[in-house]
Amino acid sequence: MKHSSNPLILSSGRSGAESRVSKDPPKPVVVLVRPQLGQNIGKAARAMLNFGLTEMRLVAPRDGWPNPDAGPSASGADIVLEQAQVFATTEEAIADCSTVFASTVRRRDLVMPVVGPEEMASRIAGSGERSAILFGAERSGLETEEVALADAIVTVPINPEFASLNLAQAVILLAYEWSKSAELAQPTVKELEPPAPHGEVEGLIGQLDEELVAKGYFHPPSRTQATRNTIRTIFTKPGWSSREVKAVRGILRALVRPARDRSQG
Amino acid sequence: MKHSSNPLILSSGRSGAESRVSKDPPKPVVVLVRPQLGQNIGKAARAMLNFGLTEMRLVAPRDGWPNPDAGPSASGADIVLEQAQVFATTEEAIADCSTVFASTVRRRDLVMPVVGPEEMASRIAGSGERSAILFGAERSGLETEEVALADAIVTVPINPEFASLNLAQAVILLAYEWSKSAELAQPTVKELEPPAPHGEVEGLIGQLDEELVAKGYFHPPSRTQATRNTIRTIFTKPGWSSREVKAVRGILRALVRPARDRSQG
Repeated sequence: MKHSSNPLILSSGRSGAESRVSKDPPKPVVVLVRPQLGQNIGKAARAMLNFGLTEMRLVAPRDGWPNPDAGPSASGADIVLEQAQVFATTEEAIADCSTVFASTVRRRDLVMPVVGPEEMASRIAGSGERSAILFGAERSGLETEEVALADAIVTVPINPEFASLNLAQAVILLAYEWSKSAELAQPTVKELEPPAPHGEVEGLIGQLDEELVAKGYFHPPSRTQATRNTIRTIFTKPGWSSREVKAVRGILRALVRPARDRSQG
Repeated sequence: MKHSSNPLILSSGRSGAESRVSKDPPKPVVVLVRPQLGQNIGKAARAMLNFGLTEMRLVAPRDGWPNPDAGPSASGADIVLEQAQVFATTEEAIADCSTVFASTVRRRDLVMPVVGPEEMASRIAGSGERSAILFGAERSGLETEEVALADAIVTVPINPEFASLNLAQAVILLAYEWSKSAELAQPTVKELEPPAPHGEVEGLIGQLDEELVAKGYFHPPSRTQATRNTIRTIFTKPGWSSREVKAVRGILRALVRPARDRSQG
């Protein structure tokens, strides 16, 4: 069959655009920390669902929840909004997540791994465990203390002379990278012992903090928050398993008790 | 005298290709075909500049050009808007481009290559020639005849059950992929402190061991070696830096000292 001068041939049925959204490994949770406008929550939901992400968690949304402004901006991604869970604190929102990324563009006074979107995606795909990505408030982003809760910072490499990503754009770029990785994810070798959920690590850090307060470790007061951030990053870094977290908590108890020698007692 | 191969190109006397010291590969031109809202043109400009794209072309913008609604939405990406060129037809807008991609999510009855964003980016980078990416009107997208002008369709693989990318989002995803390819992206530097030499970790483990012995932690004696092994693996695992090892040793000293409150002393 001969075609016109237009070199394009009509065809039915062929499409190169296959969905790359796959089911396992677990999809990351998107955590919006102190979001301000309902509109932006809706836009973030829309961004997520475009790439198959459905689990949204809200930490202390400024205008409460549900928010009537969210729905219209979600352009149909209502299921994400309906299933959104609300938490009072970021710690609670990520308590069941083993790997947590903090999305930020600003430099932080924290020594933690900084990864790009692809590296984040491949770590999420590779972990086989529940993961979360934290996004800060529209204006201010994440507080340093919130970033310190994460295992790594994820930063979208951006024009250094014009860095102006809004919340939904940050969400869509990371969701997009995740979806690419999820498609490519091969059956992953699970670590022998997966990292403990963040709630357990927080328990350890809380215990340590109490003991250090009792010992007058935090001094001077002006440095206390920075010191706490450092301690958090130090003890989040190992990715200890539940068993290891328990062991460290036992060690901690032993260290602070009065000296005695059980083997002789 | 040599003339442009297409005399219909509107020229303000300085085309993007000539005015810029050419880096390789050339940055793709973003062509908005029949854009409707000035607001969306501004958002597209902002999306572009985030990833270093500066050359925008507008084909028959509905509300004319310049459009007072564009600036406020560009959030500072004014340079993109100021340099935007206007064309009457898509053909004219891409007349000087060697490689043209048509961004679309809908299936087309056209037999032409369909590529993903990464493949597009690598073709742009590889061509070394001027390239363009076409984006259609907000509501309707590109007409089939406009798609047919391109060398390939570029489609962002998306959730088949919820495909809802707006113009600026489509622009930002493709600009992002381009920037990765162009290695504009350098901030993916890992700022990790290198792990401390093993001797330092051993020093920490030795200190911990001493304190634990003093507290009678190792009990019963038959389990002592196994427990010591566990402790070694737990504290070797983090890969703490020298700074972090020092901090943990300081914490350890604080934990075992008699309780007191320095902040009050």
